Amino acid sequence: MVALSEGLIQVLIPAAALLGIGFAFLQWVLVSRVKVSGYADDESQENNLIESGHEEGFEDFEVVAKCAEIQKAISVGATSFLFTQYKYLVVFMGAFGAIIFLFLGSVKSFSTKSEPCTYNKGQMCKPALANAIFSTIAFFLGALTSVLSGFLGMKIATYANARTSLEARKGIGKAFTIAFRSGAVMGFLLAANGLLVLYASINLFKLYYGDDWEGLYESITGYGLGGSSMALFGRVGGGIYTKAADVGADLVGKIEKNIPEDDPRNPAVIADNVGDNVGDIAGMGSDLFGSYAESTCAALFVASISSFGFTHNYAAMSYPLLISSMGIVICLITTLFATDLVEVKNVSEIEPSLKRQLLISTVLMTAGAALVSFVALPSKFTLYDFGNDKVVKNWHLFFCVVTGLWAGLVIGYTTEYYTSNAYSPVQDVADSCRTGAATNVIFGLALGYKSVIVPIFSIALSIYVSFRLAAMYGIAMAALGMLSTIATGLAIDAYGPISDNAGGIAEMAGMSHEVRERTDSLDAAGNTTAAIGKGFAIGSAALVSLALFGAFVSRAGIKTVNVMNPKVFIGLIVGAMLPYWFSAMTMKSVGSAALKMVEEVRRQFNSIPGLMEGRTKPDYANCVKISTDASLREMIPPGALVLVTPLIAGTFFGVETLAGLLAGSLVSGVQVAISASNTGGAWDNAKKYIEAGASEHAKALGPKGSEAHKAAVIGDTVGDPLKDTSGPSLNILIKLMAVEALVFAPFFAAHGGLIFKHI
Amino acid sequence: MVALSEGLIQVLIPAAALLGIGFAFLQWVLVSRVKVSGYADDESQENNLIESGHEEGFEDFEVVAKCAEIQKAISVGATSFLFTQYKYLVVFMGAFGAIIFLFLGSVKSFSTKSEPCTYNKGQMCKPALANAIFSTIAFFLGALTSVLSGFLGMKIATYANARTSLEARKGIGKAFTIAFRSGAVMGFLLAANGLLVLYASINLFKLYYGDDWEGLYESITGYGLGGSSMALFGRVGGGIYTKAADVGADLVGKIEKNIPEDDPRNPAVIADNVGDNVGDIAGMGSDLFGSYAESTCAALFVASISSFGFTHNYAAMSYPLLISSMGIVICLITTLFATDLVEVKNVSEIEPSLKRQLLISTVLMTAGAALVSFVALPSKFTLYDFGNDKVVKNWHLFFCVVTGLWAGLVIGYTTEYYTSNAYSPVQDVADSCRTGAATNVIFGLALGYKSVIVPIFSIALSIYVSFRLAAMYGIAMAALGMLSTIATGLAIDAYGPISDNAGGIAEMAGMSHEVRERTDSLDAAGNTTAAIGKGFAIGSAALVSLALFGAFVSRAGIKTVNVMNPKVFIGLIVGAMLPYWFSAMTMKSVGSAALKMVEEVRRQFNSIPGLMEGRTKPDYANCVKISTDASLREMIPPGALVLVTPLIAGTFFGVETLAGLLAGSLVSGVQVAISASNTGGAWDNAKKYIEAGASEHAKALGPKGSEAHKAAVIGDTVGDPLKDTSGPSLNILIKLMAVEALVFAPFFAAHGGLIFKHI
Repeated sequence: MVALSEGLIQVLIPAAALLGIGFAFLQWVLVSRVKVSGYADDESQENNLIESGHEEGFEDFEVVAKCAEIQKAISVGATSFLFTQYKYLVVFMGAFGAIIFLFLGSVKSFSTKSEPCTYNKGQMCKPALANAIFSTIAFFLGALTSVLSGFLGMKIATYANARTSLEARKGIGKAFTIAFRSGAVMGFLLAANGLLVLYASINLFKLYYGDDWEGLYESITGYGLGGSSMALFGRVGGGIYTKAADVGADLVGKIEKNIPEDDPRNPAVIADNVGDNVGDIAGMGSDLFGSYAESTCAALFVASISSFGFTHNYAAMSYPLLISSMGIVICLITTLFATDLVEVKNVSEIEPSLKRQLLISTVLMTAGAALVSFVALPSKFTLYDFGNDKVVKNWHLFFCVVTGLWAGLVIGYTTEYYTSNAYSPVQDVADSCRTGAATNVIFGLALGYKSVIVPIFSIALSIYVSFRLAAMYGIAMAALGMLSTIATGLAIDAYGPISDNAGGIAEMAGMSHEVRERTDSLDAAGNTTAAIGKGFAIGSAALVSLALFGAFVSRAGIKTVNVMNPKVFIGLIVGAMLPYWFSAMTMKSVGSAALKMVEEVRRQFNSIPGLMEGRTKPDYANCVKISTDASLREMIPPGALVLVTPLIAGTFFGVETLAGLLAGSLVSGVQVAISASNTGGAWDNAKKYIEAGASEHAKALGPKGSEAHKAAVIGDTVGDPLKDTSGPSLNILIKLMAVEALVFAPFFAAHGGLIFKHI
Repeated sequence: MVALSEGLIQVLIPAAALLGIGFAFLQWVLVSRVKVSGYADDESQENNLIESGHEEGFEDFEVVAKCAEIQKAISVGATSFLFTQYKYLVVFMGAFGAIIFLFLGSVKSFSTKSEPCTYNKGQMCKPALANAIFSTIAFFLGALTSVLSGFLGMKIATYANARTSLEARKGIGKAFTIAFRSGAVMGFLLAANGLLVLYASINLFKLYYGDDWEGLYESITGYGLGGSSMALFGRVGGGIYTKAADVGADLVGKIEKNIPEDDPRNPAVIADNVGDNVGDIAGMGSDLFGSYAESTCAALFVASISSFGFTHNYAAMSYPLLISSMGIVICLITTLFATDLVEVKNVSEIEPSLKRQLLISTVLMTAGAALVSFVALPSKFTLYDFGNDKVVKNWHLFFCVVTGLWAGLVIGYTTEYYTSNAYSPVQDVADSCRTGAATNVIFGLALGYKSVIVPIFSIALSIYVSFRLAAMYGIAMAALGMLSTIATGLAIDAYGPISDNAGGIAEMAGMSHEVRERTDSLDAAGNTTAAIGKGFAIGSAALVSLALFGAFVSRAGIKTVNVMNPKVFIGLIVGAMLPYWFSAMTMKSVGSAALKMVEEVRRQFNSIPGLMEGRTKPDYANCVKISTDASLREMIPPGALVLVTPLIAGTFFGVETLAGLLAGSLVSGVQVAISASNTGGAWDNAKKYIEAGASEHAKALGPKGSEAHKAAVIGDTVGDPLKDTSGPSLNILIKLMAVEALVFAPFFAAHGGLIFKHI
């Protein structure tokens, strides 16, 4: 039964996107009710301050003013960093856009003649030059949307952080709601925006391509490439920025000077808080948007060469977009459970409430996916399966979506188990601090390694099932299934850095110990949700890049990727090495930048009189500058590694070596990424476990400043670049190389493998 | 030109082996000239003591007596541990031998009828039951030889350690020569012994198999399985033993009590020194023996189904054994350069002298390989290449051997660059200690990640070249090429722990500061050579397991291992996860055992009066017991993981998933192993760099006890389980799974894949 007409779909998809945007706006309005002095509107600042002061007494007046000041400093810092970064990125986009155009244009020597289609034999398709032009345009569109996603996320987070601190004065539940609502603003805005732009692009491209869907969806893959390449720089640059500042601030502040985290006397404190927003928020936003864009593109490309693609069944073709639309609606309902239907009253309810979000969205989406599958798809159709036709039924695709969706839940829950200090793994790591930093590091690394087991098995299972049911299209739909609840995933993920910032602002504004304790417990849950978010990101990246990989293999005309072929095997082993090379670069970058930061912070403590006593202010701007410079300089080599490697492999070694390379980097990168991000999250929460002293065991290890706590701080510091720089960047590495290979596949297939051709 | 008759070869191979054994004996005689009181002959102890005292004055008399006592304690501890371990291993061997027999016997339901051969169509081969019986026998032989190799190595090392300390009183050159000669005893004994037993086994099996070479060389692969499974337990058990003791001793001694390494007041000091011998020496000996046995078996199996195998060309068939024989002769000449032709006069000459060993042996072996290739091989022949015939020339095989050989040199030199404190990478890590342990750990991890790049490219290159030239036989010969200089490799590798022990004995015997400085510099070079040895071990393991993998694929009758087949892909991604699971187990084991050790050491310091002042002796035996118990208990789960996984994958998921699993664990495990062992080596030497204070930079970071030094000690401690437990065990993981798959291939091909058959 196919009940959906083209006209109805043309309404439904944009309607879902607009609904998401509207909901995001509503949440924003609710957040904005918490008044911080309106720095957005400088003239009325005094009024606002008085207003807030009016509500909460005179002492609060000063606190609110201070909050406003700090919030402004963070927001200005983050905005200025992003704009500086964008200047570099514009140059990159121009250059890379030119490469795309030239490489793809040269496939048929820039001919403007139409060609017979590759898959839909007998039909005529648009010329290769059109593919070059539209791929380049799609690349720009994807890049812009990605940048926009990151930027909007950052704006929302810096808008929400101080509001969360202020609400924390009223109680844990209020603060949680504000932080979560702000996360939801970001989640819905990004999910809806991604869907809308992609939908609009497809309709735009169709004006030229008309019935040539093969060409249309081939060129639209450039959108994924644009999205992910921006995400790469966002993640790497932001990651280096935030961790250079964080590590630098901690090394001098917490370890040498014994002052608390986020103490306003620490010169690196503003840079640290800016970093949370440009790294964890903007970077993560771009990253998940990239995953979403790529999995949709991969699904659409494979669908375009299926039977319903050939027969131009619009409803079936729109299946990936309809799943995403349904996802937005489901997430909207899910959000109400966290913000309206159930109220968080104390600390112990935070994590369960966030976990419940995952469960609710997954259960509801299962029903949603069933509905979409039965109304949008023909009951039976054939898919392209590496040269063969595969007969598939609509409920097969439903299962593909659902395996991805539930695999995401399993990954999320496993991540929570390994990174939350409510369970034994993190408590064991905390316990190992009794014997010092060395055992803490050993146990933490072991925990990270161990935490890959369950996610890998669930990814493997969902790959097997969806692959068997619907070949590469199944994988792409499993990826989209995992990402269908992206709005909720992003909401609980963004919640983390917002709470982290809120804690920083509370400390800097001199709020009471009680408020700080509340923000700390929000933050501890935030570490876990951030790890869960990273788990989703890497799990979906694995599926997405496999789908892209399959699309690449189809597009490049390879029949088998045989490991026993030496060309493939050398690709495989070198590909498995790339995540290490990449991590070495990013970690070394963070290390070096942190060393510079430490020297600057030490210099300020030694040379600015009265700083330690709190009588004078440190020079925050200098530290911001160090982070900015380091991040912009150091993001280039790892970025180049990821972007240049597929081009070199494809051009000189050919499509088979490139296929091996993609498979190798995928299976190796997933492990490194999961273990890095969980290790880091566990160390962070082991430290928080000791600090909070909520159990007898934790009390015996603490308090702050004890030997065990010092050991825990060292672990936390080591974990910073692992969990926030190299780990999360790796999932972009594997996706980006795959989508790049796919976009350039026509070129590699036509002209690649220069070396092997000549020896 | 084939100039070698069967009779001549039957003389040459055992002659080379006996020459190696004779040379080892000669070196042993030279080492034994240094007199330690003869604990081996208790009655004459007094005489010996007087004799030594006679030569070197009365003060020396006491020192020598003390050395003798410590040496005895170490030797007794190591022997008793190994015997305890062997008790467990005998049980394992019995059980696993039974599994081999039952699985392989069941392939044709224990029928005793002869069958048509699998590859050499038209010929009759011995029944499958014979394969079951002889594979089981070969397994026992391999296991016994492996155990013997480890045991002999340990005996030699514990014989040499005190002698090295005593010689260090006379000067650095003398001490170096003794340590190196002792290493050579082990190297030559193991290489020669491995060759001899394998040669004898083949001749023995031939009594039954006669002209059925296919069956003969298929069953002989059990030898490799036996060798590697013992090596696994040796490495894991020994690794946990040594690092539990080392980490435990350091955490209390160096960090809490501020007493030097190897201080006799530290209760864990004997356990620590015992550990060097059972882990680094016995484990490494078994490991490299296993690699050697497996690559020879893989080469022989592939050769047996080539054209010269079918035509029973004995000389060509003996090519792998002849290469190994030539290797022994070449290494013998090479050794003379270190011990007789060039004399080491001061510290700075140690590392160059060891490096020269690698270069000399490689250059000479290149000529040796050319000679063997041209006299043993027909000028042209065909090899089995996954169902096709591949025409190969003799000089092709020469190139295969040589690419492996030189790749080994590149890996060795790269490892040296990344782990020696003479170069900038380790100095950078040392420098990062200025800002504490966290940056040290970050830089160290980044160094390890970076150090995989060059080895992987050289492995990839040698794989491509040898694969293209001679298919799987080429890979096996490249592996054997890398291992042809195993005697030299083992000599410089064993040199490391011997020097480490010598330093320990010098400290415990209360020798002068000058002597301790000499042993320290021997030891620093030893850290580098140990890392080089591990580099060789992992490089050769990669090639060996690829060769075994190829043999498995051939034997299992798989035509292609297509990554785009979901059965293969899930194997690939799960296989890539296994090294992480395995490392998590071993690191956690070391961590937990170290925690127990710390508690015991602390308890002794607190409860034994006068211990800290050196008036009473600690209870060494208790610490030895903790290490022993932990090691025996904890070696079982990781061992089971490695041994059971291929059986489960093959039986339930079938040969394709198993093939994916092997490829995944290979390409991922290599990276983890190289980075782990180099990171650990670098941290150790960064610490030694600060301690030695040989440059302005190093002086600024030191001296011992400075903040930077404390940070360096933490890094060193974290590195211990990485470099001596998980890292080196991983290369056994990848080899062992591959050889196990190969041995069980007939069973999996006949009865495997239960799950996929039923769904």
